[in-house]
Amino acid sequence: MSVLFFHAMRYKRTEPEHRDNDRFVLSKRLSFVDVATGSLGQGLGAACGMAYTGKYFDKASYRVFCLMGDGESSEGSVWEALAFASHYSLDNLVAIFDVNRLGQSGTAPLEHCTDIYQNRCEAFGWNTYLVDGHDVEALCQAFWQAAQVKNKPTAVIAKTFKGRGIPNIEDAENWHGKPMPKERADAIIKLIESQIQTNKNLMPKSPVEDSPQISISSIKMTSPPTYKGGDKIATRKACGLALAKLGHAHERVVVLDGDTKNSTFSELFKKEHPERFIECFIAEQNMVSVALGCATRGRTIAFACTFAAFLTRAFDQIRMGAISQTNINLIGSHCGVSIGEDGPSQMALEDLAMFRSIPNCTIFYPSDAVSTEHAVYLAANTKGMCFIRTSRPETAIIYTAQENFEIGQAKVVRHSVNDKVTVIGSGITLHEALAAADDLSQQGISIRVIDPFTIKPLDTATIISSAKATGGRVITVEDHYREGGIGEAVCAAVSREPDILVHQLAVTEVPRSGKPSELLDMFGISAKHIIEAVKYTLMN
Amino acid sequence: MSVLFFHAMRYKRTEPEHRDNDRFVLSKRLSFVDVATGSLGQGLGAACGMAYTGKYFDKASYRVFCLMGDGESSEGSVWEALAFASHYSLDNLVAIFDVNRLGQSGTAPLEHCTDIYQNRCEAFGWNTYLVDGHDVEALCQAFWQAAQVKNKPTAVIAKTFKGRGIPNIEDAENWHGKPMPKERADAIIKLIESQIQTNKNLMPKSPVEDSPQISISSIKMTSPPTYKGGDKIATRKACGLALAKLGHAHERVVVLDGDTKNSTFSELFKKEHPERFIECFIAEQNMVSVALGCATRGRTIAFACTFAAFLTRAFDQIRMGAISQTNINLIGSHCGVSIGEDGPSQMALEDLAMFRSIPNCTIFYPSDAVSTEHAVYLAANTKGMCFIRTSRPETAIIYTAQENFEIGQAKVVRHSVNDKVTVIGSGITLHEALAAADDLSQQGISIRVIDPFTIKPLDTATIISSAKATGGRVITVEDHYREGGIGEAVCAAVSREPDILVHQLAVTEVPRSGKPSELLDMFGISAKHIIEAVKYTLMN
Repeated sequence: MSVLFFHAMRYKRTEPEHRDNDRFVLSKRLSFVDVATGSLGQGLGAACGMAYTGKYFDKASYRVFCLMGDGESSEGSVWEALAFASHYSLDNLVAIFDVNRLGQSGTAPLEHCTDIYQNRCEAFGWNTYLVDGHDVEALCQAFWQAAQVKNKPTAVIAKTFKGRGIPNIEDAENWHGKPMPKERADAIIKLIESQIQTNKNLMPKSPVEDSPQISISSIKMTSPPTYKGGDKIATRKACGLALAKLGHAHERVVVLDGDTKNSTFSELFKKEHPERFIECFIAEQNMVSVALGCATRGRTIAFACTFAAFLTRAFDQIRMGAISQTNINLIGSHCGVSIGEDGPSQMALEDLAMFRSIPNCTIFYPSDAVSTEHAVYLAANTKGMCFIRTSRPETAIIYTAQENFEIGQAKVVRHSVNDKVTVIGSGITLHEALAAADDLSQQGISIRVIDPFTIKPLDTATIISSAKATGGRVITVEDHYREGGIGEAVCAAVSREPDILVHQLAVTEVPRSGKPSELLDMFGISAKHIIEAVKYTLMN
Repeated sequence: MSVLFFHAMRYKRTEPEHRDNDRFVLSKRLSFVDVATGSLGQGLGAACGMAYTGKYFDKASYRVFCLMGDGESSEGSVWEALAFASHYSLDNLVAIFDVNRLGQSGTAPLEHCTDIYQNRCEAFGWNTYLVDGHDVEALCQAFWQAAQVKNKPTAVIAKTFKGRGIPNIEDAENWHGKPMPKERADAIIKLIESQIQTNKNLMPKSPVEDSPQISISSIKMTSPPTYKGGDKIATRKACGLALAKLGHAHERVVVLDGDTKNSTFSELFKKEHPERFIECFIAEQNMVSVALGCATRGRTIAFACTFAAFLTRAFDQIRMGAISQTNINLIGSHCGVSIGEDGPSQMALEDLAMFRSIPNCTIFYPSDAVSTEHAVYLAANTKGMCFIRTSRPETAIIYTAQENFEIGQAKVVRHSVNDKVTVIGSGITLHEALAAADDLSQQGISIRVIDPFTIKPLDTATIISSAKATGGRVITVEDHYREGGIGEAVCAAVSREPDILVHQLAVTEVPRSGKPSELLDMFGISAKHIIEAVKYTLMN
């Protein structure tokens, strides 16, 4: 780190977040500069995002350095990042493997076999140097050489000894995370100080100032939505169209996908803005980390897309993203049983539970194309992480082009003074609720239907006032498991209100393959079940 | 697959689940035999678990074959599994890479560069063959050779063409997941049938029958808990002790850890049963997949341990585990802010939300050493996935050795006829609730304190009856985020009961580093906050 900070890296010491500075990611420890680390193996993916941004979006001179532990290189996410970096020829990226042999609870699997690290990195397409990690000159040379290499990222495999030079601690087990005993510290500090051979004030080199100055605030769509009432379009497709449109509104909008672009419709963005689309292949953890890296220092507005079910693969990266206070936007398509034939492995039924547990995460669950376009636009302008949940089946347009949408503001889409029950649905189940309302209306029963639009924050005020206006009777219906989704969010929202009872309709078991309408019915969230629940609620 | 099923593999065709059969994992498609796949890159880890079990626990002849797609080899979990298999010399494992060049939405990153696959597999310590995947003889030879190799797993890199031999479809994009148009199907089926050169009935070879017959039901602990009231011990340590004890109760109990064994205390199991401990290093996804593989066909009772926060890394594997109807047990230590100084990256505050969303998952959240031992014992005997959440700080023993514990049965740990409020806490917050009860009692206010023991299933009956006995006033307090945890579970459980109001105390923002007691206080879940909440509730 001394060699990096006082020799290799170029940066303004007084402006650590300056856009032209070289970036440094300390992946192996509980510390952070641009991104939080501490959950291991995530730093290199973020560094890839920074390097991709530097090379392809900023087209600037800054370089990216990532220091990793040997233990954490057991994490598959590291190998996803290694494959990504060589695929995209990130020659502005240097990864340093600190091979000190020791993990937390024992030795790392490859111990000091630095040749195996080298073989693996080379097989993954990296320019690689083996060095003595305690040899300052060797490190200086390696970093200098790395800067000369074109079209390949560089890995510096540094053989080191933990606690180097400290008697009885060097290379010994059981010191991980443990402080030095006080009685030994003084002597050791003196020993280290005695080895310092210069008192020269080391100054870092200044950066090359060639990154464009940009602003990513107050992005405005170029025109209002153009959908017409009666049209049918899947929210996943509307999302792709909205991303393409947003790309015209701001040149720093970038989109990532994990080989699902023809299903999430992010290919519509790619078609219009190919230079700002990043294909991350089937590696969702790395995709999220790359997005995190792209979004650091406000260099891009990043949207990462895949099936919502596969975002579970990146839960740890998402969790850490919240700690980093990232502004990335995640889009998860193909939610719930309504995807139909592809079966349970492809159905997201736990994604709302996951994202609701992320502090400061805004969750959009649009129910038609108009609200989807607003969700994309609002996400681009919202600080903190955003998640947009989209559906596979085509659904009718229910909002006019003039409708205004705000975060935390629900829409009461059906209401009358005689409403007996409030039904809350989102996406496909909002349409089931509207069908139920039509049917019940013919039987002389009026229900109020609410579209929350954002599941987090939830519009508690509208829900409570509607519940009170309908005799305290609330039914939630969602294409998600019962736990952690809309139903529980509503239960919690009304938990301090007397006289409001909530009846939850949700998926309660592992589903199966079938036609979407069959599955909605089989798992108890179709119009038929809503009608039954309304009648049951009114009888009790 | 024809070569595998009719030439290479040994199995009883009439008993597909026989313990002596060779195993087959189809990682690349939406199908399953022993484990569900469809979320990509998970098959090889499960195959590793089967092969580890075959080699080290069963010491049997059966072999394990895993067929993977090229696209899914971008998943880091595949490289975790490759590293694991060579580290443990799994020479009974064969992975086949079907390199057909095409992903879902475009070409896979390495296209038909089979030499790169070969280099990577060799760097990861595998014996590797490059073959034409359409050449039956070449495949027969590769599988035969693989069976001769000692101490190394074998990778067969098969170059293939998707839709081989079908005019205008072979090697073409945009056929992923799409059915053949009806009008073309007949001619193509005829074309394929015309190429069949034999009508011989192919019979698989019989397996070598050398796996031990075992039973993993009705496991009994060798003795009751021996903790004494007044002792203080962390539930994470009690969990390690219980695992060691369970290991004596049944020889098929196996424990996995991801380089945290000195923190989760799974090292206590390792010390007594070293041959049944699997060090998985820092690769949580693979650890869960290996556990899944170990538990297939009832060969082991597997417990996988790490910090609960890092189990988020394996959410997708856990999700798929539920679809597989696995019986694995996961232990997550270091939950919540009460871990103290290590900071938010190490604090699990979303794990209950995650596991609650898993169908049929039993969630134990023990609050002392006695209940922890019961949780471990019950998990070993429970079908479906189990999760045990343990805490870092030492806590007092509150149950006697004679106390009986059942899944879904809460303990009312403090009660009187004058109780004014029901307080529900688990782990560290149960102890905070008891401290609050003592304090309030001196002020003349009695509260009822409930330990749910299992968060899923939740003892709704006890909660509702206690709530009714205390004026409908309930306070939940948990070392977890507000969303998806104990509070919302309780809100949902009482959502159809009039006159029960729930007040949630939970962590509501990204925490920071500090002393455990400082953090409990700072994030609003200490005895002090419970006392305030009780008084507030009584005033309203």
